[in-house]
Amino acid sequence: MATTAENRVASDAKVLQSYLGGKWQAGTGEGTSLINPTTGDIVASASSKGLDLSTALSYSRNVGGRELRKLTYAQRAELLGKIADTLAARRDEWFEIARKNSGNTKADAAIDVDGSIGTLKYFAKIGAKLGDTRMLRDGSPSRLARDPNFQGLHLGVPLDGVAVHINAFNFPAWGLWEKAAVSLLAGVPVFSKPATSTAWLAQEMVSAVLEADILPPGALSVLCGSPNDLLDHLQLGDVVAFTGSADTGEGIRRHPRIRKQNIRVNIEADSLNAALLGPDVQPDSMDFGLFAREVVREMTSKTGQKCTAIRRVLVPDYHEQAAIDALSAQLKMTVVGDPANALVTMGPVVNMAQRKSIGEGIAQLNTRADVAYEPDNFAPLDADTEHGAFVAPTLLRAREKGNDDVIHEVEVFGPVATVVSYRDKHDAFALARRGGGSLAASVFSGDTNFLTEAGAALGTSHGRVLLVDPSIRESHTGHGIVLPSCMHGGPGRAGGGEELGGLHGLWFYHQRVAMQGAGPTLTALNERAADPHE
Amino acid sequence: MATTAENRVASDAKVLQSYLGGKWQAGTGEGTSLINPTTGDIVASASSKGLDLSTALSYSRNVGGRELRKLTYAQRAELLGKIADTLAARRDEWFEIARKNSGNTKADAAIDVDGSIGTLKYFAKIGAKLGDTRMLRDGSPSRLARDPNFQGLHLGVPLDGVAVHINAFNFPAWGLWEKAAVSLLAGVPVFSKPATSTAWLAQEMVSAVLEADILPPGALSVLCGSPNDLLDHLQLGDVVAFTGSADTGEGIRRHPRIRKQNIRVNIEADSLNAALLGPDVQPDSMDFGLFAREVVREMTSKTGQKCTAIRRVLVPDYHEQAAIDALSAQLKMTVVGDPANALVTMGPVVNMAQRKSIGEGIAQLNTRADVAYEPDNFAPLDADTEHGAFVAPTLLRAREKGNDDVIHEVEVFGPVATVVSYRDKHDAFALARRGGGSLAASVFSGDTNFLTEAGAALGTSHGRVLLVDPSIRESHTGHGIVLPSCMHGGPGRAGGGEELGGLHGLWFYHQRVAMQGAGPTLTALNERAADPHE
Repeated sequence: MATTAENRVASDAKVLQSYLGGKWQAGTGEGTSLINPTTGDIVASASSKGLDLSTALSYSRNVGGRELRKLTYAQRAELLGKIADTLAARRDEWFEIARKNSGNTKADAAIDVDGSIGTLKYFAKIGAKLGDTRMLRDGSPSRLARDPNFQGLHLGVPLDGVAVHINAFNFPAWGLWEKAAVSLLAGVPVFSKPATSTAWLAQEMVSAVLEADILPPGALSVLCGSPNDLLDHLQLGDVVAFTGSADTGEGIRRHPRIRKQNIRVNIEADSLNAALLGPDVQPDSMDFGLFAREVVREMTSKTGQKCTAIRRVLVPDYHEQAAIDALSAQLKMTVVGDPANALVTMGPVVNMAQRKSIGEGIAQLNTRADVAYEPDNFAPLDADTEHGAFVAPTLLRAREKGNDDVIHEVEVFGPVATVVSYRDKHDAFALARRGGGSLAASVFSGDTNFLTEAGAALGTSHGRVLLVDPSIRESHTGHGIVLPSCMHGGPGRAGGGEELGGLHGLWFYHQRVAMQGAGPTLTALNERAADPHE
Repeated sequence: MATTAENRVASDAKVLQSYLGGKWQAGTGEGTSLINPTTGDIVASASSKGLDLSTALSYSRNVGGRELRKLTYAQRAELLGKIADTLAARRDEWFEIARKNSGNTKADAAIDVDGSIGTLKYFAKIGAKLGDTRMLRDGSPSRLARDPNFQGLHLGVPLDGVAVHINAFNFPAWGLWEKAAVSLLAGVPVFSKPATSTAWLAQEMVSAVLEADILPPGALSVLCGSPNDLLDHLQLGDVVAFTGSADTGEGIRRHPRIRKQNIRVNIEADSLNAALLGPDVQPDSMDFGLFAREVVREMTSKTGQKCTAIRRVLVPDYHEQAAIDALSAQLKMTVVGDPANALVTMGPVVNMAQRKSIGEGIAQLNTRADVAYEPDNFAPLDADTEHGAFVAPTLLRAREKGNDDVIHEVEVFGPVATVVSYRDKHDAFALARRGGGSLAASVFSGDTNFLTEAGAALGTSHGRVLLVDPSIRESHTGHGIVLPSCMHGGPGRAGGGEELGGLHGLWFYHQRVAMQGAGPTLTALNERAADPHE
C-alpha cells in the first residue's frame, strides 16, 4: 500500500476489490490510497492493475444483459425495491464510511446515502407501473399511408450492451445507485466505476447487494481503481454515463472508440450554478433571510462539493450590501471540523489535492472579485489543517462588470461563492447564462409573473430551474437537491446530458425505433410495450 | 471558374452565392465546380472564400432567432405551409436542376423534391396543433414533496442559438427542408450548408423562398462552398445536424469547439442497411418477387445513393440461388443512361470521384464475395462512360461465413448490394446487427410472429424496421423512404442520431428543463406550453 511521509495507515485499512465477471478480484501492485480527509490517515487502497476488463465487459453483456432482459420492467422494479431495503438495513455503516472516507457530516451522508435509497425506491415504484412488458412505446400505432393497414409505431427497445457508469468522488452512494436504478430497470447491466478516492462506500454497498443475492449474475459489476483500457472495449449497444469534471467529460467525448463507434454518452459535469434574488425581495423580509440560508446551505453542504451547488449569487445592485451582510451572518454560524463531532456543520473536502485546487481557484477569482466574507480565525474543531483537508467558507464579491469572465468560468469545487450584482432582470438572466450552461438555477421572488418569465428565460441554458415564492419557502426541496422525478443535467458546460426525470430517464438505455408494418404486427408489438408517459 | 481538360463549361453556368447576414454574398477565387454527371459539363461553381461566417452566425442568432421566437408554433407552422406552396409552384425547375446537377431521373428527383414539399406540408399540419404556444411540455405539473403546492413540470424551451445543418450531396432538396422544417417550427434559425457538389438546387430553392418573403429576416441562411471555419464559431444554444459519411460525422464529433462546448450534435450517417427475406417465403410466390423488386428498387433508386439503401440482402441458405435469380432478373431490366431519356431508369452517380470510390468498394467486397450479377455489355443510353459518371448495377454473393467483416463494414455508395445467406433466424438477426448499427432494416414474411420477433430483435441496432407481410405488400412505403412521421437515424455506424419522427423531432431544438415551483407559477408556465404527444 502506497503511503507518504504524512499519511499514517489506519489499523483497519481495507484493500478494495473489484467485482468483475461474477467474482471479486484484486489488482496487482500497491494501488491508490484512500484517505480520511479529517485526519489524513489511509483508510483503504485500490488497484485495478492487470484486471481483464474486456472479458469482464463481455460477461456483463452476455450473462448480465441476457438474464436481466428475461425479466419484465415490473420484475426488475421489484429488484430495485429489494436493493433499497438491503441498503437501508445497513444505513449506519454507510454513514460511518462516508464520515471516514469523505469527511461527511451526518447531513452530508444523508444526501448521499438516503438519496440513493430514496431514488431506488422511487424507481421501484414507478417501474412497477410498466407491468409485464419489456419495451417502451411512444404513442400508439397510427396510419402511415393511404392504406389504413400500413401503420407506424415508435418503440424503445432495451440496448443489448453494457452500461458503463463513471462516477464522481462526491456522491459514492447516490452516483452509483441513481444511475444503476434506471439502467437495471431498463434491463441493461451495470458496470460501475466509482471515483477511486471515495470508492470504499461504493464497493461495500455493491458487496452488500451481491451478498443479498438479489440480482441475476452479471447484472452488477464494480471496478475499483483506475479505469485503464475500459473505454477501448466498448461496442454497439454499450453506453457511458459519466458524472464529474467538464475536462474529464470532454476527454470521454474525445476518446477514439467513443467517437468512431458513436457510443452513446451522457455527461453530467460540474457547472457554475446561479441563485437569483428577485428585484422585489426586501432586505428586512423573511424571504431575504431564507434566500441567504439557502445559498449558505448550498455553499457548505458537502463542503460545497456538489455539482449543483450555488457558485454565483445574483442580487439586485441596490441590495448587494444587504445580501452580503445576510450571507456573512449565515456563514459565520458554520462550524468547520471533524464530522464526528455533532457540533460540526461542515467537514473537510475530500483530500489535500482538492484543497489545493480550491485555493488556486479562489486566487483566480480574486483577480476580479474581493473577499466579502471569510472567518477571522480559521481553526477546525477537533482537527487541524496540517492533516485535515479543511477549507474556510469564503464569499467573494465581483468588483466590476465587463472583463469578469473568470467569475462565470472558474468553478471552485468547495465552500466558495461569488456575489454578482445585476442592474435589471434582463441583466440578471444574461449573467446566469454566462455560466455557459448549468445544471440548476434558483430564483427567489414574490412575483409569479417574474418567476414565470425567469423560468422561460433561464430555461435555454439550464437543466433545472427552481422558482421559489413565499408559498413554498419552507416546503421546496432546495436548489441543489436532485429529485429522481426531475431531469438532472444541463446544456453546454454542464455536459449536455439528461439523467433521471422519472421514466423519461429510461430512454437513454433504449434504442428508439420506428416500427412500420401491418396492423396486426404492430398491435402485437404494441401489446409487448408500455407507455412511460402514462 | 476552375476547369479541367475533360470538363466543358456549360453556356448557362451559374456562380452560386451564399445568403448570409441577410444578403447574398459571393466568395472570392475560382471556387469549386459543380458538374453535370451525365455529360461532365460544368454547370455551376461555388466559393465561400473570404466570407465572414462569425458575423453571419451572429446575425442568424440575434436577428433570426429573436424574430422567429416572437411567433408561436402555429404561426411558424403556417410559414412552413407557405414555403411548401412556393416550392411546389416551381417543381419543374427543381426537377430540371436535379437532372442537370445530380443526374436524377424524374423518379429520383421526385423523392428529393416532392419529399421535401411533403415533409414541409406535414410539419405545417402537425405544427398547427401546437397552437399559440412557444414551449413544449412533457406531462403536467405534479407534486414533488409532501406539500402539494411544490410541483414539478418538464418543459422544452426553444434554443436561443442557430441550427447549423450540414447536408449530404444526395438530397440537396429534402436534406435542406426536412431539417429546416423542424428547426423553423421550433423557432431556431437555419444556417444550411449543402454539399457543394449539388448545392445548386439548394441555393435556388432558398432563393425562391426568400423572394417570396415568407420568413422573418435571419431565419434562413445558406452557405454554398466550403464550410471553412464555420464550426469554430459555435456557442451555447447552437446545434449541428449533420447528414453524410460516417467519417465526416466523426470529424464533427472530434472538432474541439463541438467537444469543449458540448455543442449538441445530431449525426445521420450512411449505414449498411439490410433486407431480410423470411424463412417462410417461397421462391414461386408473389411475395418472393416483390421482395426482389424492392431490393432492386433500393439498389437503383437514385443510383444507390441513398443513406437508407439496401446494401446487404439476407436470405435463407436454401433459397440463396433462387433469390439471386430473382434479383438478377429484376436488375436486368435496369436501363442506365441520360436521365433526360424517359426510358432510363437509372442515371449516373454524382461525379467521377464517387464512381471511382464505388469501383474501389466493389474491389474490397470482391475479396469476400463473388459477382452474382452485372450487365453483359455495359453501355449507357444516350451517354458514355468517358464523360458520364455511370456505374453498372452490381450484385455480389458472399462466399463464406466467418472472415467476412468487409461485407458488413464497407459501404459502397452506389447501385451495389451483397447477398448473404443465413442458417436460421438467429443467424439472420445477428448478421443484420453486424452492420454495426443501421438506419433501416426491412423484413419480408407471411408470419406475423416472426415479424414481431424480428422487430424486437433488430430494434436494438436499427432506427427503423419495416415489417412487410402480404397484407401490405403493395401499400407499404418502401425500405428506403423516410417518412416525416417516423424517426430517421440509427445507432452506432449510422451516427446515433434521431431526426424527424413527427413532433418528437422538435426536442433536438429545445432545451429540456425541469421546472420546480409553486402551483400557480407552474400553471402559468404550463399554459404557455403545448404537449407534442397529444
